[in-house]
Amino acid sequence: MSGRHLLGVGDLGPEGICEVLRLAETFEEVGRRPIPKVPALRGKTVVPAFFEDSTRTRFSFELAAKRLSADVSTLSSSSSSLNKGESLRDTVLTIEAMGVDAFVVRHSCAGVPAQVAGWLSGDASVLNAGDGAHEHPTQALLDCYTLVRERRARFGAVASGTTPLAGVQVAIVGDIRHSRVARSCLLAFTALGASVTLVAPPTLLPPSLEGWPVEVSHDLSAVLAKCDVAYLLRLQNERMDGQLFPSTREYTANYGLTARRAQLLGPSALVMHPGPVRRGVELDYEVADGPASLVTSQVASGVAVRMAVLYLLLGSGAPIGA
Amino acid sequence: MSGRHLLGVGDLGPEGICEVLRLAETFEEVGRRPIPKVPALRGKTVVPAFFEDSTRTRFSFELAAKRLSADVSTLSSSSSSLNKGESLRDTVLTIEAMGVDAFVVRHSCAGVPAQVAGWLSGDASVLNAGDGAHEHPTQALLDCYTLVRERRARFGAVASGTTPLAGVQVAIVGDIRHSRVARSCLLAFTALGASVTLVAPPTLLPPSLEGWPVEVSHDLSAVLAKCDVAYLLRLQNERMDGQLFPSTREYTANYGLTARRAQLLGPSALVMHPGPVRRGVELDYEVADGPASLVTSQVASGVAVRMAVLYLLLGSGAPIGA
Amino acid sequence: MSGRHLLGVGDLGPEGICEVLRLAETFEEVGRRPIPKVPALRGKTVVPAFFEDSTRTRFSFELAAKRLSADVSTLSSSSSSLNKGESLRDTVLTIEAMGVDAFVVRHSCAGVPAQVAGWLSGDASVLNAGDGAHEHPTQALLDCYTLVRERRARFGAVASGTTPLAGVQVAIVGDIRHSRVARSCLLAFTALGASVTLVAPPTLLPPSLEGWPVEVSHDLSAVLAKCDVAYLLRLQNERMDGQLFPSTREYTANYGLTARRAQLLGPSALVMHPGPVRRGVELDYEVADGPASLVTSQVASGVAVRMAVLYLLLGSGAPIGA
Repeated sequence: MSGRHLLGVGDLGPEGICEVLRLAETFEEVGRRPIPKVPALRGKTVVPAFFEDSTRTRFSFELAAKRLSADVSTLSSSSSSLNKGESLRDTVLTIEAMGVDAFVVRHSCAGVPAQVAGWLSGDASVLNAGDGAHEHPTQALLDCYTLVRERRARFGAVASGTTPLAGVQVAIVGDIRHSRVARSCLLAFTALGASVTLVAPPTLLPPSLEGWPVEVSHDLSAVLAKCDVAYLLRLQNERMDGQLFPSTREYTANYGLTARRAQLLGPSALVMHPGPVRRGVELDYEVADGPASLVTSQVASGVAVRMAVLYLLLGSGAPIGA
Repeated sequence: MSGRHLLGVGDLGPEGICEVLRLAETFEEVGRRPIPKVPALRGKTVVPAFFEDSTRTRFSFELAAKRLSADVSTLSSSSSSLNKGESLRDTVLTIEAMGVDAFVVRHSCAGVPAQVAGWLSGDASVLNAGDGAHEHPTQALLDCYTLVRERRARFGAVASGTTPLAGVQVAIVGDIRHSRVARSCLLAFTALGASVTLVAPPTLLPPSLEGWPVEVSHDLSAVLAKCDVAYLLRLQNERMDGQLFPSTREYTANYGLTARRAQLLGPSALVMHPGPVRRGVELDYEVADGPASLVTSQVASGVAVRMAVLYLLLGSGAPIGA
Repeated sequence: MSGRHLLGVGDLGPEGICEVLRLAETFEEVGRRPIPKVPALRGKTVVPAFFEDSTRTRFSFELAAKRLSADVSTLSSSSSSLNKGESLRDTVLTIEAMGVDAFVVRHSCAGVPAQVAGWLSGDASVLNAGDGAHEHPTQALLDCYTLVRERRARFGAVASGTTPLAGVQVAIVGDIRHSRVARSCLLAFTALGASVTLVAPPTLLPPSLEGWPVEVSHDLSAVLAKCDVAYLLRLQNERMDGQLFPSTREYTANYGLTARRAQLLGPSALVMHPGPVRRGVELDYEVADGPASLVTSQVASGVAVRMAVLYLLLGSGAPIGA
């Protein structure tokens, strides 16, 4: 990784993504030790700044930072001076001046992490933990990690000199329009060699897909029969202004991975979802908890992948330590 | 302790309770050292999940975990994805997948900690920090610890081979019906050999007491004259649906430990209350702060007792360390 | 420092202030190390108890405590038993009984930190982090630290045997009436030898200034021409009951440090503000970010100064350590 920040998947490139995946494997091994901590970031301060509700991402970053022995001090929007009319810029610069090392930013508006990065005058890093419908790069990284490792376990290592997902067909299904996960995942999957097909009703696609390296389909059944990975997205009802589909029931009928429709998948196909899963809507219970599902592995990979990212951005390059 | 969880006093049995009390004594000694920390749980992650307001219990568990060198990451209901419609089950399984070691659960509904324990598929422990009107086992343990130690200091050690509270008469007074503390305490006190009398107006008793190893009385003055310990409960107004007694003043007149009524207690009788005390309602000021009162000792014991429980559930059996 | 608490600047005296400043310099050097932590307060527990919104002060104390290796457990008003009708006194005594070492108290009512200190029966310290319109002593200390260091860097060391701000003319400008910062700063600045002039409209002065060692002026331009330091206060609109000045625009016209008015300052004059700055109201953008401004240095100094205070109050007198 060349830059100081992780604002989007594009900051990494294929090389950078592979570097994160290699390091995450080391940290996953650390997680299995009796004392799953390393002193790599002792004395560093990581500031989760979550201006939008979150459990899994906030928790995952917090655990990652603590397992690297960093100090964690949370900036919560509710108890901050933002209520006194202080601007976000002033708050960020104030905390930067205290000598912190990283801001992990989630915000409902696209572009806020980049804005924060632009304000900083020192060496602190900014990690995008999800901004509006823009990007969620660590989610895409943990999805790549989970998928690459799972395919290696099931089908063996890829030929040397090949990108880790070369030739893999991924279908990303559902609410593309409101999904930062969709955007980060398609960038990351294609950077590693996969081909991506987006499957959604026209109302849940972005206004324009020009320049996106993807195919588009409205026929989920046809796509499922050919894909290696079905990546189902969460219905982001809370980000929808109006009625974009007739009903949740009709959405599920056309774009949900029901148990019946899952039978169209090939025997080696895998199922992913960034969570939280609405069982019965995007995925049927037996699919979410079935043998093809990577849902739990995705969550479990999050801590090791975020340790890797924090280490690459904040570590001094010294060895990881005991 | 045989099980992995502490959901109620029954998970311990008399042996288990005595084991906790012995270990708590060691940890209380640790608390008097210049640096009152031990590395026993380094690298373990404890997750307080308090879905009901609490200061003393949350603080006490948090301090206990930190003095054992565990990492503490709090799940607060207000900032979690529970607001996005995620189920509690999904939240718990998600956090479990990240590799945490214990959930400390408080919830306004009886049975939630047991439900959480049932959902877990890995090795994480669940500690009940109070669930509805069901149980609050660590409160009962710290009460046993405080009472046993105080009686030993005042009256000398019990004969070897005797249970620590053999022959002790305890009166539990007040709002039994809404009190998880009453239920856990009577189970713990009787397990250690005490006899328990419940004293309350009929409206503040549970619908049935069948199978409870207790006597019942509505005459506080008569009971006070004979008991060794008067354990006053908090009036849980916030859990009462309707009007269960005419007025707080009348409650105090009949069931409060006023200074006047406290004169009925024998010279060696002790007074306890789980806190927060409403002085002037359940206990008069001079009684709460008088020489017979163990109220402050109860609070002070909480950290050592919770260290003992966490160590027994999460420790690897290795020595406690420096 | 002789006492156990820091409730106001008067608890220190000139000697005590100088001791804090010397020690803060050591801790600022610690902050520049690769691992900016020292084990000085390992095993101590610091409890931030902020009953009023705050980012910078809460964060600054929290970072200070962690860099001294103390444990930090926050008492937030929203999730505490204060909602169950428990009194603040009971909450404080309960937490004290658990064996904590310091309360860092912010409250909207003047006098609460002193009240808390009066309730404690053990050895715990109370640090005032701002109480109503009364005092905010660590803000004044960091202002002294910033000013003394900056003047030494620009004009050389003061003659030995002289107080560090001897002969320095400070103008404190704006909403004196509602400002705990004004009160603490004028006490600290004068204790170090400075002369202070308060500049404000009559409605924003306290009802009486009897006994305050200050001059008063309503003519900002005249004062600016003569002062060495212009200390601008924040307009505390949230503490104002009625209309104390015609409009914010008129306030700025008369008492704001506009770019135009800043030209009246001498070439070596310095500009300070406790933050958060409302740019365009109290200070123009080019003044807040100009070469005479110490605003960012003030924030940056906060952590080292608070480390010094915590160390002096809680440290055992042992060396600071590696």
